[in-house]
Amino acid sequence: MRQNKMILPTLREVPKEAEITSHRLMLRAGLIRQLASGIYTYLPLGLRVLKKAEQIVREEMERAGAQELLFSALQPAELWHQTGRWDDYGPELVRLHDRHDRDFVLGPTHEEVITTLVKQEVSSYKKLPINLFQIQTKYRDERRPRFGVMRAREFVMKDAYSFHTSWDDLDVTYKAMYEAYNNIFTRLGLFFRPVEANAGAIGGEGENHEFMAMAEVGEDTIAVCSHCEYAANLEKAEAAGHEAAGLQPSEEIAATEKLHTQDIKTIDQLVESLSLEASRFLKTIVYLADGEPVVAVVRGDHDVNETKLKDLVAATTLELANDTTIERTLNAPVGFIGPVGLTGVKIIVDREAAQVTAGITGANERDYHITNVVIGRDYTPDQVADIRNVIEGDRCPNCAEGSLEFHRGIECGHIFKLGTKYSAKIGATYLDENQKSQEMIMGCYGIGISRCLAAIIEQNNDESGIIWPIAVAPFHVHVIPVNVKDAEQVAIAENLYRRLQAQGIDVLLDDRDERPGVKFKDSDLIGLPLRITVGKRASEGIVEFKVRKTGESVELSVEKAFEEVTGLVLGQ
Amino acid sequence: MRQNKMILPTLREVPKEAEITSHRLMLRAGLIRQLASGIYTYLPLGLRVLKKAEQIVREEMERAGAQELLFSALQPAELWHQTGRWDDYGPELVRLHDRHDRDFVLGPTHEEVITTLVKQEVSSYKKLPINLFQIQTKYRDERRPRFGVMRAREFVMKDAYSFHTSWDDLDVTYKAMYEAYNNIFTRLGLFFRPVEANAGAIGGEGENHEFMAMAEVGEDTIAVCSHCEYAANLEKAEAAGHEAAGLQPSEEIAATEKLHTQDIKTIDQLVESLSLEASRFLKTIVYLADGEPVVAVVRGDHDVNETKLKDLVAATTLELANDTTIERTLNAPVGFIGPVGLTGVKIIVDREAAQVTAGITGANERDYHITNVVIGRDYTPDQVADIRNVIEGDRCPNCAEGSLEFHRGIECGHIFKLGTKYSAKIGATYLDENQKSQEMIMGCYGIGISRCLAAIIEQNNDESGIIWPIAVAPFHVHVIPVNVKDAEQVAIAENLYRRLQAQGIDVLLDDRDERPGVKFKDSDLIGLPLRITVGKRASEGIVEFKVRKTGESVELSVEKAFEEVTGLVLGQ
Repeated sequence: MRQNKMILPTLREVPKEAEITSHRLMLRAGLIRQLASGIYTYLPLGLRVLKKAEQIVREEMERAGAQELLFSALQPAELWHQTGRWDDYGPELVRLHDRHDRDFVLGPTHEEVITTLVKQEVSSYKKLPINLFQIQTKYRDERRPRFGVMRAREFVMKDAYSFHTSWDDLDVTYKAMYEAYNNIFTRLGLFFRPVEANAGAIGGEGENHEFMAMAEVGEDTIAVCSHCEYAANLEKAEAAGHEAAGLQPSEEIAATEKLHTQDIKTIDQLVESLSLEASRFLKTIVYLADGEPVVAVVRGDHDVNETKLKDLVAATTLELANDTTIERTLNAPVGFIGPVGLTGVKIIVDREAAQVTAGITGANERDYHITNVVIGRDYTPDQVADIRNVIEGDRCPNCAEGSLEFHRGIECGHIFKLGTKYSAKIGATYLDENQKSQEMIMGCYGIGISRCLAAIIEQNNDESGIIWPIAVAPFHVHVIPVNVKDAEQVAIAENLYRRLQAQGIDVLLDDRDERPGVKFKDSDLIGLPLRITVGKRASEGIVEFKVRKTGESVELSVEKAFEEVTGLVLGQ
Repeated sequence: MRQNKMILPTLREVPKEAEITSHRLMLRAGLIRQLASGIYTYLPLGLRVLKKAEQIVREEMERAGAQELLFSALQPAELWHQTGRWDDYGPELVRLHDRHDRDFVLGPTHEEVITTLVKQEVSSYKKLPINLFQIQTKYRDERRPRFGVMRAREFVMKDAYSFHTSWDDLDVTYKAMYEAYNNIFTRLGLFFRPVEANAGAIGGEGENHEFMAMAEVGEDTIAVCSHCEYAANLEKAEAAGHEAAGLQPSEEIAATEKLHTQDIKTIDQLVESLSLEASRFLKTIVYLADGEPVVAVVRGDHDVNETKLKDLVAATTLELANDTTIERTLNAPVGFIGPVGLTGVKIIVDREAAQVTAGITGANERDYHITNVVIGRDYTPDQVADIRNVIEGDRCPNCAEGSLEFHRGIECGHIFKLGTKYSAKIGATYLDENQKSQEMIMGCYGIGISRCLAAIIEQNNDESGIIWPIAVAPFHVHVIPVNVKDAEQVAIAENLYRRLQAQGIDVLLDDRDERPGVKFKDSDLIGLPLRITVGKRASEGIVEFKVRKTGESVELSVEKAFEEVTGLVLGQ
């Protein structure tokens, strides 16, 4: 493509609204422009990368036996009522109605639609398993769209759904998808890890994995074992069962004692004022689970994992209770809540909080805490369970030897074993070998393709700009005649442009009448993997060949440069 | 692809909801399924055709120098307020609001968005002209979605927009697009005609053409000259100026006379009751143009062309006045309206109605008409103009010799000279050679890609099913082992399947364990251009090679059949 008339508006200035590198570079290198908060236009350069990423995803999905189809973005609300997600999904679901006042959603995912299709079109076990995918525009009305295409409101996803006669059969496809995802993210040039994860709004009964591109700006925290292969999303990471240190029979602990703690409401203040370890305190948090109050107790040095708690109480929504609700429900002042003496409310205690031998906690009375609190003697939990976030240094829940380290990641893919969550509600059944009706077992598999672009750039850049991996580069090679008024330079550049294109190589020809400095700066910013500069030595048939990633450059004959490029690109 | 596990649900029964051939065949051949009124899922077979059509459009657009980008479907309402289309577009515009109550539309076209982008990114004449296109999902909340993907609410379009420094420069791109469209529709295998057309809701100041796929089920009527190249949409087709037959000086006509016409309100009734030619009558229709009453007078054998009338009075909306409005405004009974004696309302008379020498028209009094009506003597028009639809047999407005014939067409493409309609409102200007700010001149160019699929099928089918042109066929060849329990047949079919695919040929292998009759019926219905049947003579190395379009079939050696297919497909 010729750069002169191309819409490829590079920016020298760093756009103020962009908080992270990939967002800044996507704007600066002319890949995207914002139309509204979380809504982007892909300019020609950005679209080329998007299409290449889509094609990699398509190839690997087809290789793994999936069939491509295409659903509409508009989905009738009735389907969402059927599965209950119309009510459960919350304000992120884009809703609208047509001229006849019928409700629709703009799909964030397509479980309802595909399960309905398969229900209609597949009736026999003989047609199962099947795995169907689409590459399509999705919608999510994010509360806080940010980081460019990383968390957008309109974005491109590959979503796939598989249907099975058994969990074992689902296992086979799940493994194939796990493998395909490894292939896809590898081909996209990403440094990534599959991690155990929580199912979130999609739900489902079985295991699920997120594919995380490792990056400091990632919005997810991943707990990784220093020793074994264990890696899990923080939401999901299990706390290893701890031995209680120095656990005493409860009789040996003195009776509870009230402490006057004027205006001291937080654990940090308590730790400072009482000069005790945070782990001695019992932090007590009040939630509303589907509107019902639930009290969660964790150690002072721990935090409640709301996902674990929500799953434990099997709630659809879980939110922090506000002050008014707390004081009305528990008849106790905020900042001084504790499990002792609380009645009429479910108390759930984290396993490690349950091992605190003589705890300190709020007295449910303004300006007072109590000490020497013993579980079972002074209060009775409804349930003891793992409801906390792991912390760095925690023992690995998988192996005996490692401890957990934290990393940040960008969720680029997510695979789920859904089971019958959707097929049961939609009524997607098949007749088995004995002509008996059975619910289909489902899996689903998503990749945020537009988000991958941000992840790739986040991992592949330097102070001058982007460094594209060859597989997704918008063009493979940048051919730059330094001076477009020099007929010899132009002739060589045009010749290379044509010959390389004839080999199936994507070439960007910088035919602009710009100063060399501008051309090179733009070239580094755009970051094509290879560059051929046709400059002063053109008359001798010598050009400069440069690799963006290493910065290495050599002078070569035109012919040799041509061979280098074709070798590197086609040999890929 | 292997048919056994493919979602390719053919239907024997003709779906009741489908009124036209292409809709019936798209459902029966398993190309699409309806999700909601006007909203469709593309099953794997349908998606393959859609993608091939998209690729043809992409290639021809790029060859004509256009650059591909991708906008969002969501567009902020502010942009639509800026051009006034928020108010003008009416209920077909899909509107919604986000969680912060900001208004958005789901784009039916992208003039506002692209003009805003170009305004931001292009400032100098040096960067013009540019032509930008996208292939994207569009939305239109049709009052009556029908005919499957032909008139859908969510559909795939290619839309392109070009920006220029002059009308002459726009001309060059317009011609290039005209040419590209000819190439595209030819490659898609369509029998089509470019016709002069009206700009509709897109608007614009200059010429525009529709590309019509000829088909009896088409929703548009095209007037075509029997002699010259003239072809125009009925909305647009000009009535040739007629010589008045036997025009007499008005003095010679006797004075008007009142006729008692009890309960006779329509032209047909009048013609019958008075035994006079319909062309003697002055049909008088009352409209509201932007809310103001306008009276249109045409000959009794003609109809008002509302588009011409609307353009003539420069109204944004034009609708028939209802009875109450008519009687209140004109103080005359519906069915007996006429131009004589009407006051306080604009009267527009068609050119040929103005040439009626002694007309008959309503007397503005119940059960009375008047005769011997003479224009200028008995009533005074505000304007005489071409405001009627042409009729079959009308003289061609372009040449002296031909007369107009009517045909039906499906609007598959539309190209417009927009001028400055959008650039002026959005403020898309550039600096010319003299550093003077000028408004950009625009063109826009659309193709309804999903609609083209319906048009292709409408033109390419027989009683057994679809007959795909090779260029857009979902697969080039159908390989059918008649009996999948016969190892020899299967071996030959599998071998052909692999070898043909290796040549880049798209092969569908019917590996289903079905009766031969079912396989052949499905094969004819799906309508791939070529078929190789591996049957009884497999042991001799003989297969049947069949061309879907001609129905010709020959027995050939496996090798010869392989060569026939590769020759026909790759030689294309």
